[in-house]
Amino acid sequence: MHEDDIIARAAQFPLQHKLLLGIGDDAAVLAPQALPLVWTVDTLVENTHFLRAMPAAEIGWKALAVNLSDLAAMGATPLAALLSLSLPADLDPAWLQSFWQGLEAACTRYHVALAGGDSVRAREIQISLSLLGHSTRPVTRSGAKAGDLLVVSGAFGGAAAGLHCFKQGLDQPGLLRRHWHPLPRFEVAAALSQGCQQLAMLDTSDGLARSLQVLCEANALGCEVEGPLIPVEAGLAELAEAAVVRDWVLNGGEDFELLAAVDPAAAHWISTDPQLQIIGHLTQQTRQLIRYPDEVIELNGRDWGYQHFGDGALV
Amino acid sequence: MHEDDIIARAAQFPLQHKLLLGIGDDAAVLAPQALPLVWTVDTLVENTHFLRAMPAAEIGWKALAVNLSDLAAMGATPLAALLSLSLPADLDPAWLQSFWQGLEAACTRYHVALAGGDSVRAREIQISLSLLGHSTRPVTRSGAKAGDLLVVSGAFGGAAAGLHCFKQGLDQPGLLRRHWHPLPRFEVAAALSQGCQQLAMLDTSDGLARSLQVLCEANALGCEVEGPLIPVEAGLAELAEAAVVRDWVLNGGEDFELLAAVDPAAAHWISTDPQLQIIGHLTQQTRQLIRYPDEVIELNGRDWGYQHFGDGALV
Repeated sequence: MHEDDIIARAAQFPLQHKLLLGIGDDAAVLAPQALPLVWTVDTLVENTHFLRAMPAAEIGWKALAVNLSDLAAMGATPLAALLSLSLPADLDPAWLQSFWQGLEAACTRYHVALAGGDSVRAREIQISLSLLGHSTRPVTRSGAKAGDLLVVSGAFGGAAAGLHCFKQGLDQPGLLRRHWHPLPRFEVAAALSQGCQQLAMLDTSDGLARSLQVLCEANALGCEVEGPLIPVEAGLAELAEAAVVRDWVLNGGEDFELLAAVDPAAAHWISTDPQLQIIGHLTQQTRQLIRYPDEVIELNGRDWGYQHFGDGALV
Repeated sequence: MHEDDIIARAAQFPLQHKLLLGIGDDAAVLAPQALPLVWTVDTLVENTHFLRAMPAAEIGWKALAVNLSDLAAMGATPLAALLSLSLPADLDPAWLQSFWQGLEAACTRYHVALAGGDSVRAREIQISLSLLGHSTRPVTRSGAKAGDLLVVSGAFGGAAAGLHCFKQGLDQPGLLRRHWHPLPRFEVAAALSQGCQQLAMLDTSDGLARSLQVLCEANALGCEVEGPLIPVEAGLAELAEAAVVRDWVLNGGEDFELLAAVDPAAAHWISTDPQLQIIGHLTQQTRQLIRYPDEVIELNGRDWGYQHFGDGALV
C-alpha cells in the first residue's frame, strides 16, 4: 500500500468540480464563501469506535455521516471534506477498497466533495474526517428559554441494540443498520429552522441523556422529560429486558438524531410531523429530570452517555 | 482524563474572537470569507512521526507548524485550526499539559484560532490538525515552464541530522530544534509571491528529492540541479560521512522549506535574498537530474523521500 495509491483513489471521488483545487497539492482550495462557515471534525478509531470485523463500507459511510450529523445540528449545508487516514502496514487491501466505496457513497448521497487529506502509518486504523459547510443562520445549543418544548427526531436505542446484535451474532439487519449506517437529519433540521423563530439544537451522538444535560447546561436551565414520550426503536423489547432497553435509549449513544428546544408556539405543527416528537420542556430551576411511571431519573452531576475516556470503548 | 477537561483546556486558547462560534458546540463557525479558502490536514502519529520520549511541547508546536508549512507553500494566510486528538488511557497528564503549551505557543505566534475538535481514546497518541487559511492568489505546484529556475529556501538535512542526534543522545540543540521546531516560511513565500509573476511552489516536507520529483511530474518537465548549490545545514560534516549527509539533504525530509519554480527574470533579486538559493532549472526533457562532481543522480521512477508506508517510520 503506497501513499500515491491512496491519493489516486481519493482523486476518483465525485464532485471535484465544486473545488477550485482538489487532491494533489499542498492544500485544497475552495471558492470564497458568502455565508458563515461551519466546520467540524470527528475521528473513528479501531477498537474504540469500530472493529475491523465490521463491514468496512459501513465504516466509510459512518465516518462521513457522523460529521454530517454535526452539520445538520448546526442548520448547515455541507460543502467538502478533508480526510486523514491512519492505516496499519498489515491492513488487507480489500478492507481499504470497501472503505472507499462506503465513503464515496456517502459523499455522493450528501453532495460532499473530498478535497484532500493525509495518509499515515499507525498501529490501529483511524479515520479522521473534517467537514466544511455553510449556513445562513447557524443554530447553536444556546438561546433557549424556560418553557421551551424539547423535541427529538427519530427513535432511540437502535444503535446500541445494533451493536449488541453484532456482538451476539444476531440476524437483525435493521438494527445493525441503525448502528453503522446513520442518516443525518438534514430534512428535520431544515423543517425546525424554517418553523421556529428561536431554536437551540444539538445532535444526540453521545446519548440522549448526555445531550439533555448539555442542552440544559448551555442555557443554565433544567428540564422535565416524560420518559414514556421518548420514541424507542422498534423491536428492542424482544431483545432485552426493560431496564437494558431504557439504558440503550438514554445512554447508548450513536443514534445521531436531533434534540431541539423550540418555542411552545411551534407545538401544533411539530405534533403533525411524524419525524418529530415532543418529549418535555425546559424549566427555570436547573434540575434535569426524566419521569417514568416507576422512577424519576435525575441527570444532574452524573456522567451520562458515551465517554471516550471512560468505559465506552467497544473492546 | 475526561473529555470535558480537554474541551475546557482548548477553550483557553487565544484568538477566540476571530471565530463567530468556537469551542463547545456541534461545530465551529467562522465569518464569511471573501477570498478563496485554503484547507489542509496533517497527522502526527506516535512511533511513526514522533516518540513519546520527545518533548511534548515540541510535538504540539510541530503539529501546527507542519500544516502552516502547507499553507505557506500555497501562498495562504492562516485563519483557524481544528484538532482531533487520540489519546491512550494511560497517558501521563503532564505529557498533555506540555503538548497544550507547545500548540498554544504556535497558535499565538502564527495568529491561528483553535476553533474546536474532537478527542478520542486510542492505543497510540495521534494528533490530527486541520487548518483553514485564505489567499488572494493560491500558489499551486503546476504552471511552471522549461527554463524556470529552481529556488529553495533555507538549508537541508537539518531535520534528519536532528533525529540522528536525538537517537544517539548527542547534545546538539540547534539540530534537535531543526527536527522538532519547524518554522513555516511565510516571509519567503510572500517575497516569492510578490516578486514573481508566475510561480509554482510546494514545501519540502517529504524530502528535497521527492519534492523535485513532484514538481517535475506536476509540470511534465524534467530538471537539472547542481548538487553543490543545494544549501546544507551547518555542522553536518562533523556528524557523519559525506554519503550520509547527502542522504539527509536529499532524502531526510521534514525540513519544511520551500521549493519553487520561477521565471529567470527573477534571478537577480533572488540572488540578493540570503534566504533563497537558486539550485538549478526545469528542462523540456523529463529526466530529473542532480549533478554532483562525483556522481549524477537520476530521480525518475524511484521512491524518494519519506514514504509513510515504506520504511520511514521512526521505530
